[in-house]
Amino acid sequence: MENKKDDKFNNINDSGSVGIVKTSYFDFANPSDEFVLSNGSKLSPVTIAYETYGTLNSDKSNAILIFHALSGDAHAAGYNSADEKKPGWWDIMIGPGKPFDTDKYFVICSNIIGGCKGSTGPSSINPKTGKPYGITFPIISIKDMIIPQKKLLDYFGIKKLFCAAGGSMGGMQLLQWLVSYPDFTEGAMIIATSPTHTAQAIAFNSVGRYAIIVDPNWNNGNYYGSEKPDKGLSIARMIGHITYLSEESMHRKFGRKIINGKIFQADIADFTKEFEVENYLQYQGESFIKRFDANSYLYISKAIDDFDITDGFENLTDAFKKIKAKCFVMSFTSDWLYPKEQSMKIVKALKINGIETTYTNFEAPYGHDSFLIDDDRLKRLFAGFLKSLEEHIQ
Amino acid sequence: MENKKDDKFNNINDSGSVGIVKTSYFDFANPSDEFVLSNGSKLSPVTIAYETYGTLNSDKSNAILIFHALSGDAHAAGYNSADEKKPGWWDIMIGPGKPFDTDKYFVICSNIIGGCKGSTGPSSINPKTGKPYGITFPIISIKDMIIPQKKLLDYFGIKKLFCAAGGSMGGMQLLQWLVSYPDFTEGAMIIATSPTHTAQAIAFNSVGRYAIIVDPNWNNGNYYGSEKPDKGLSIARMIGHITYLSEESMHRKFGRKIINGKIFQADIADFTKEFEVENYLQYQGESFIKRFDANSYLYISKAIDDFDITDGFENLTDAFKKIKAKCFVMSFTSDWLYPKEQSMKIVKALKINGIETTYTNFEAPYGHDSFLIDDDRLKRLFAGFLKSLEEHIQ
Repeated sequence: MENKKDDKFNNINDSGSVGIVKTSYFDFANPSDEFVLSNGSKLSPVTIAYETYGTLNSDKSNAILIFHALSGDAHAAGYNSADEKKPGWWDIMIGPGKPFDTDKYFVICSNIIGGCKGSTGPSSINPKTGKPYGITFPIISIKDMIIPQKKLLDYFGIKKLFCAAGGSMGGMQLLQWLVSYPDFTEGAMIIATSPTHTAQAIAFNSVGRYAIIVDPNWNNGNYYGSEKPDKGLSIARMIGHITYLSEESMHRKFGRKIINGKIFQADIADFTKEFEVENYLQYQGESFIKRFDANSYLYISKAIDDFDITDGFENLTDAFKKIKAKCFVMSFTSDWLYPKEQSMKIVKALKINGIETTYTNFEAPYGHDSFLIDDDRLKRLFAGFLKSLEEHIQ
Repeated sequence: MENKKDDKFNNINDSGSVGIVKTSYFDFANPSDEFVLSNGSKLSPVTIAYETYGTLNSDKSNAILIFHALSGDAHAAGYNSADEKKPGWWDIMIGPGKPFDTDKYFVICSNIIGGCKGSTGPSSINPKTGKPYGITFPIISIKDMIIPQKKLLDYFGIKKLFCAAGGSMGGMQLLQWLVSYPDFTEGAMIIATSPTHTAQAIAFNSVGRYAIIVDPNWNNGNYYGSEKPDKGLSIARMIGHITYLSEESMHRKFGRKIINGKIFQADIADFTKEFEVENYLQYQGESFIKRFDANSYLYISKAIDDFDITDGFENLTDAFKKIKAKCFVMSFTSDWLYPKEQSMKIVKALKINGIETTYTNFEAPYGHDSFLIDDDRLKRLFAGFLKSLEEHIQ
């Protein structure tokens, strides 16, 4: 064990880790100045968990804001403690010498409102009742998610981002950021996302939510302090996970491999533990319930389904007309959840508006989750865009 | 109501319905001659529900055997009573003047073993205990499903089928039929199927099974006479249903339409009843639990996942080497559950063996379920193959 820990820290040094980082908390919305959400609900106080990596320069021009996806959090890079086994969720991209180079940039990532990793969400205590909000927590939208992050930047005194980046739901937040604050970032990296969910994507999310709310432990969202709707949340995660992988990557990874080489000849049927892919999915479900709140899953996945960047506009081109950022749009060839057609809609609307845009349909077999995979070609593209952005500004 | 009923029967006459049909039952495997399943388990007695349409000719050469899919049953055509609202599951294809023309052919469809629509399955009474089998029912395979159907043909005195046809799991049964009884049918219509499930297809089925077994009402399969695991079975069906439709057909049918035009502004979150696609899926789940047994779903979906037509052979070509039938293979352009590559593997292995094979990747937007859609082009292809089969025999 001792050796393993040593290895990990050697590894950190080798690969340019930001090392040990501490999550910080930003509070706003006092009772006399409540946070008004897009559906008119009010919330106070609001706490946002965030992490930063690197140093903000004197003219505050080197900040990069990273938006996380459905199951992500503020912990995007490094380790929160020496005991932590895995680094932050985008550690492959953030660190000294990495594309989001912390020797040059000040990288910020915050947990969204509605989340369960330090930001105010359904599992937080409602000060008016002294009990967790549960489903009395207001409905949130992608638009509501970005406002606390803007307030966080204001708190830092950042007037304009060098870049903003996000994949999946992070990409939706970024699109919303560009529409809500069209002149607040020099560059935008819009990755594996969509202007709005298709019926199929809504369907997958909705069955997951259905599994949570029919779990008897869900109890209309009042399960804090008692048994949690773990089975329902597991099912939601398992469904989600299938959509994040490609058929090809599942085939490569599992194919029809049997758990422990067991042969199909049991006398009593074992309905969910024969194939390795079944084991994998159950493991994904079981590890997710340890780190995620079922009500947060309901709220956040619903915000994703409800998102439509054209809301309030005539169409996508109209929505994008004020954007001033240089844009980098990326889809992945094997992503069937947000296929390239959806990125191409974004690209087309940006280009019609004369916005400088580069687009890559990146060849990768890993499905939607490809942006989380350690791939040198991907890193070079990310670094290349950031370099071009530097040149663009100079 | 009176009028509506009249309309229906007018309609039956117009469209060439087989009219009112009665389900029959075939029994075999007495206690001294038990049915031995492929894993060595024994079962006695065994009942198989079946329906026939048309008349068996004197030399018993005009029989067509139809294999049903996961949620299908023996009731493939016509109406079981004057009150029945919908005809059998392949009524579009079976009837006088239809492709499986009951004026010419004797069409047989039987419910599989393990099912819950009249054939012996987990919900049947185990004569040794006087209680339903539940999960003491033996594990079944696709190979086990076809044996009772062969016995049924023996009972009719049929020595060779004119044709056999099946889509999805029906296609798997047909592949198994061709391998187990290579000279028992003149023609084979192998539709929207696969030689074996991919990891992704296993994953979808497995999450459905997981949802059933974690439903507290499942109670290790002992729920007969008490509350059933309806929620789990609903979830399984909802997941399945998404995979049976294409993204395009869901988009055309539902897009982002809101139930009753409701606007997203509720104070309390409604997590599963905003979009029409959510309503549709829940309706599919709720109607399925009224007609299907959760344990049957476990057994049958597991048999599908376990199926590998190459088991016991070197490869697909080796498995198909004795087949004597003329083959018609069909995939659908929008079927992502069993995409064309899987049908093409079948076609390739048939052709290498010199087996006369026609293959169509049929242009249809409805996904995997396209073979159940009323489409004149599809009917013409079916009728055309059957006609060519007649000419082939003469």
